[in-house]
Amino acid sequence: MIVKFKESTEKKDIELLRKHLIDLGFAIHESVGQTYTIFGIVGDTTKFDMNSLYAFPSVDTVLRVQEPFKKVNRKFKLTDTIVDIGGVPIGGKNIVMIAGPCAVESREQVDLTTGLIQAAGAKILRAGAYKPRTSPYSFQGLGPEGLGILKDARAKYGIPVVSELMSIEDLPLFLDAVDMIQVGARNMQNFSLLKELGKIDKPILLKRGLANTIEEWLMSAEYILAGGNERVILCERGIRTFETATRNTLDISAVPVLKKLTHLPVIIDPSHASGRWEYIESLSKAAIAAGADGLIVEVHPEPEFALSDGQQSLKPERFADLVVKCRRIAEAIDRTLD
Amino acid sequence: MIVKFKESTEKKDIELLRKHLIDLGFAIHESVGQTYTIFGIVGDTTKFDMNSLYAFPSVDTVLRVQEPFKKVNRKFKLTDTIVDIGGVPIGGKNIVMIAGPCAVESREQVDLTTGLIQAAGAKILRAGAYKPRTSPYSFQGLGPEGLGILKDARAKYGIPVVSELMSIEDLPLFLDAVDMIQVGARNMQNFSLLKELGKIDKPILLKRGLANTIEEWLMSAEYILAGGNERVILCERGIRTFETATRNTLDISAVPVLKKLTHLPVIIDPSHASGRWEYIESLSKAAIAAGADGLIVEVHPEPEFALSDGQQSLKPERFADLVVKCRRIAEAIDRTLD
Amino acid sequence: MIVKFKESTEKKDIELLRKHLIDLGFAIHESVGQTYTIFGIVGDTTKFDMNSLYAFPSVDTVLRVQEPFKKVNRKFKLTDTIVDIGGVPIGGKNIVMIAGPCAVESREQVDLTTGLIQAAGAKILRAGAYKPRTSPYSFQGLGPEGLGILKDARAKYGIPVVSELMSIEDLPLFLDAVDMIQVGARNMQNFSLLKELGKIDKPILLKRGLANTIEEWLMSAEYILAGGNERVILCERGIRTFETATRNTLDISAVPVLKKLTHLPVIIDPSHASGRWEYIESLSKAAIAAGADGLIVEVHPEPEFALSDGQQSLKPERFADLVVKCRRIAEAIDRTLD
Amino acid sequence: MIVKFKESTEKKDIELLRKHLIDLGFAIHESVGQTYTIFGIVGDTTKFDMNSLYAFPSVDTVLRVQEPFKKVNRKFKLTDTIVDIGGVPIGGKNIVMIAGPCAVESREQVDLTTGLIQAAGAKILRAGAYKPRTSPYSFQGLGPEGLGILKDARAKYGIPVVSELMSIEDLPLFLDAVDMIQVGARNMQNFSLLKELGKIDKPILLKRGLANTIEEWLMSAEYILAGGNERVILCERGIRTFETATRNTLDISAVPVLKKLTHLPVIIDPSHASGRWEYIESLSKAAIAAGADGLIVEVHPEPEFALSDGQQSLKPERFADLVVKCRRIAEAIDRTLD
Repeated sequence: MIVKFKESTEKKDIELLRKHLIDLGFAIHESVGQTYTIFGIVGDTTKFDMNSLYAFPSVDTVLRVQEPFKKVNRKFKLTDTIVDIGGVPIGGKNIVMIAGPCAVESREQVDLTTGLIQAAGAKILRAGAYKPRTSPYSFQGLGPEGLGILKDARAKYGIPVVSELMSIEDLPLFLDAVDMIQVGARNMQNFSLLKELGKIDKPILLKRGLANTIEEWLMSAEYILAGGNERVILCERGIRTFETATRNTLDISAVPVLKKLTHLPVIIDPSHASGRWEYIESLSKAAIAAGADGLIVEVHPEPEFALSDGQQSLKPERFADLVVKCRRIAEAIDRTLD
Repeated sequence: MIVKFKESTEKKDIELLRKHLIDLGFAIHESVGQTYTIFGIVGDTTKFDMNSLYAFPSVDTVLRVQEPFKKVNRKFKLTDTIVDIGGVPIGGKNIVMIAGPCAVESREQVDLTTGLIQAAGAKILRAGAYKPRTSPYSFQGLGPEGLGILKDARAKYGIPVVSELMSIEDLPLFLDAVDMIQVGARNMQNFSLLKELGKIDKPILLKRGLANTIEEWLMSAEYILAGGNERVILCERGIRTFETATRNTLDISAVPVLKKLTHLPVIIDPSHASGRWEYIESLSKAAIAAGADGLIVEVHPEPEFALSDGQQSLKPERFADLVVKCRRIAEAIDRTLD
Repeated sequence: MIVKFKESTEKKDIELLRKHLIDLGFAIHESVGQTYTIFGIVGDTTKFDMNSLYAFPSVDTVLRVQEPFKKVNRKFKLTDTIVDIGGVPIGGKNIVMIAGPCAVESREQVDLTTGLIQAAGAKILRAGAYKPRTSPYSFQGLGPEGLGILKDARAKYGIPVVSELMSIEDLPLFLDAVDMIQVGARNMQNFSLLKELGKIDKPILLKRGLANTIEEWLMSAEYILAGGNERVILCERGIRTFETATRNTLDISAVPVLKKLTHLPVIIDPSHASGRWEYIESLSKAAIAAGADGLIVEVHPEPEFALSDGQQSLKPERFADLVVKCRRIAEAIDRTLD
Repeated sequence: MIVKFKESTEKKDIELLRKHLIDLGFAIHESVGQTYTIFGIVGDTTKFDMNSLYAFPSVDTVLRVQEPFKKVNRKFKLTDTIVDIGGVPIGGKNIVMIAGPCAVESREQVDLTTGLIQAAGAKILRAGAYKPRTSPYSFQGLGPEGLGILKDARAKYGIPVVSELMSIEDLPLFLDAVDMIQVGARNMQNFSLLKELGKIDKPILLKRGLANTIEEWLMSAEYILAGGNERVILCERGIRTFETATRNTLDISAVPVLKKLTHLPVIIDPSHASGRWEYIESLSKAAIAAGADGLIVEVHPEPEFALSDGQQSLKPERFADLVVKCRRIAEAIDRTLD
């Protein structure tokens, strides 16, 4: 960390900050220039909030030179992390397709969809039993009944399941019914939730918040790893920008940036990113070409009558076609999609 | 709600959607033009997700003509709502100053600060016992001990208290210790939390999410009112944009927009909006001139040594000066700041 | 276009707007509901600024149902436009690589780079003689001398050239020296410039503005086509968002959105989008997989000593490797990259 | 400027960068830590593009410690600049109201409006003869005829005039007809135009670009001052964000930030910021309370029939009321609005 003092700062103010930093356990490497003084601060600054130094009126600029995350940092673990989801590894050479309806609507709907997506090549089933909805008047999910339906589908088809947890009090039900717990975009900085998920032994699918930077996202993953749970998968699902032609703006650059910064697997959700089924094929192929380790795609047998997100759900036959096309991209970058 | 079909849509596809909408209980007012057909959809569309209609391939555009919120809507309650916080009304002619440290750090710190801000003109004490921090390694708040300190300050100084709740399991402690419960920006769409807060009898300070539209914000308030708790105050605290000169970008326009759309009180947090103490005076005066019903300002006796947000905390003497200046603005718009 | 009146609007106010619209040549299809009235406005609304109707106090909402662009609209020209750049077609089955240094720095630099990128598979040379720089103190380009160097490289290598025009007074020089004129992001809404480019007989590479919507971008293209020049290629180069890990955020979704809305070719600039050479390979492969018709990539023989944008320039050998990898992606989607 | 090398960078790579920087005329202050090396770079880095150092693979982070602007920098000129516009000073204790229609539509319209806004308290007339319009089919302004009308209004009412220049070839007409030349948001980084405006002897009203940072805005002002024209006024007019309730988002914080960074006057355009006449009063009062030196407000005698921007234009009587209210705010901060 580097601190630049304002020009013509008095010596006593420089000493005040020096004492503060030394009290906090840091060493200081001082550079005195013609017009201003610079402190190079040595020590583990990961746990220090650098912005707090702006409270000193003598401080002009504070600059960080180390990433604030540790356990998720590629620098401290060079090899890719592979997370096993009920027997399906994510993060290795093989690209994994996760698919299913936005919401669990009925036993028949889940049963029908699971059979079709599995036949098409999906390896994990996704479906929401608890739905975060902007409006209190919208369908809020079937809750425990929905989890029961998912558990039965898992048993019948032998397919692992991922579903979104919205409240920590529902955790016991999830531990029983699903193979991976999804933290939704709106809860990416629900730190109370993250702390609890750090204590359990179950993979976590951590979606990026609508307007969170990649660094903040990694810090949220750090919450989970710091708690002891190292099985985290990151999911980019579009960020909020000024553009309205798509529901969100898929930040495809997040793939190579994350691959540089962290060892955790990265998947893409083209359904929420685009908000329209007709753009999903293009974005899915781009995601794989960019280096993503998997996709999570909304599929519904009758999108027109879906209780949520029908406009961004693929019909099963389109999904089957998508898998074939994505496999060709995977092979073109020397990966597989089995 | 209005649906425009694609050009040259076949009659059977129009009838398919007509049947779907009638099944949902809506009436349809059809307009057949030369090149396309339009449905005007009549009925209570508040509870209907209009985007779902894009799942019909024949649909070109869906347009909403009614706001999706009801209980918070100014159209259904013309008079301003005034919320009483432990004897202090917010939302009327008088502008209210809320002040205090970012975090409860110690009994002495809270005691000292409370006396000073009350003497300067603050009517409500703010301080966090639970702190949402980007890093798991940062100070996370004193928790229950912090709430106890706040409760004692309330008793000693006879000042109402507002503090942030991060997890529903802590609610009983908050019901006992504080007069208003704050929902932080990161939890604005924590719908599980909002639902619980709709069931209680305690005012809620609902901060705007970093990247949430005003409409989404009002929908989150609607969650609380729909649950039965009508005592909600909205707090604009800056949104996330491309500009980095300030921590966030204060959306001052939110004040007149909210005053038009809703009857709920609106306050401004200039501390989080700017992220720097030196900009707080300018933004505070602007907020009052724009029509805000109050301010929530971070004040710390020694910002340099604050455990969080020192860079955006005012010293008590600066806060006292701020109150005097804000009072002059209040009087220039025929309001008071007592 | 649809106008919804405020509830309880008086008849005289409805008639005032009716007269205004009829005077403007529109026909009106009126729907009178229980609580409000709606006008469906029939006629060519492309040339009408719908926001102007908000000046009528009786108007609650104005909704557009037609795109505001015509000549660039896919609805009016179903087949893909193919633009010929000095013998190189862009917009067909074959994907085209455009490459070269950010700026013309010297005759030797251009000569060396052109030979290398051509050998690697690039079909068009890019290089700036006039450079838009944020700082007046940065290198501003060689100007006319730079154009002369490009003209000579074109003659020697038989490779078409694209370069950025910043001021209409330089147009004669560009007509002589280059095969395609680039309009930079900062000039996307320089309407005086666009009008002049509509009058000439030379392909235009229209980059998207930093914060312009896809619709605004198409309207800028419409300026050029409306003037008579139909040879426009659109170039997505990243938009400005809150994320700072990359220089800009590549809006990969723009590819399928544009392919739906317009018949014009679409290319991607991964160099400006990412701002770092190490992310270019990932984004390039994604761009092709998403359906882009070409790439424009910055290549410099010695990036460390480039006068501009060295941090986002590939070395020639990396570019050669990139072409091979991109060709594999092209083949996986049944296109070519020759 | 500070450069941090990657961990375990080899000595030869450090020496390579050292030589490069010394060749450029800089001195280097080196700090060797346990895990990495830091260069403090001494010299005038204003003219150096720090991002170019990322082209060196050994470089991890480059940090700037000096502002990149000089002539506009408050550090080099402590006193506020006051710009005289045809006898009206902007930037001193008195707050100045600029008003008028979006576009010159006719001699009668300008004549009528000028009389009314002057009587209400406006000191400068604004009106566009050349209009930047998103659509090529919208009204583009009266051009030279419009400037002639403005010149006549100036002569008749003795009021200075400001109007927007879109193309450098129109400059002679502007030098004759107006007292201040406006550079619109879309041309804020039209560097060719800025360079020409640096050579003339006429005040410039430089509007902020839709998505430009405050630093980029100051760099554009620097272009003009570096050319020799020191009479620049900055105008904040709203930035582009995700929020759609207003046309743009007024960045009110820009006022105190600019007052800290630069000595140039700052005014606010509440009309373009909000896009709706009903929000103008609230934003105008906020702007003055925040410390702006003036306002530029759209006023039209019949907004319903305006050829552009009617929805954000005040009627003359509302403008007169606005002036009275703004004067009260001015007095509450010990300024005047005469």
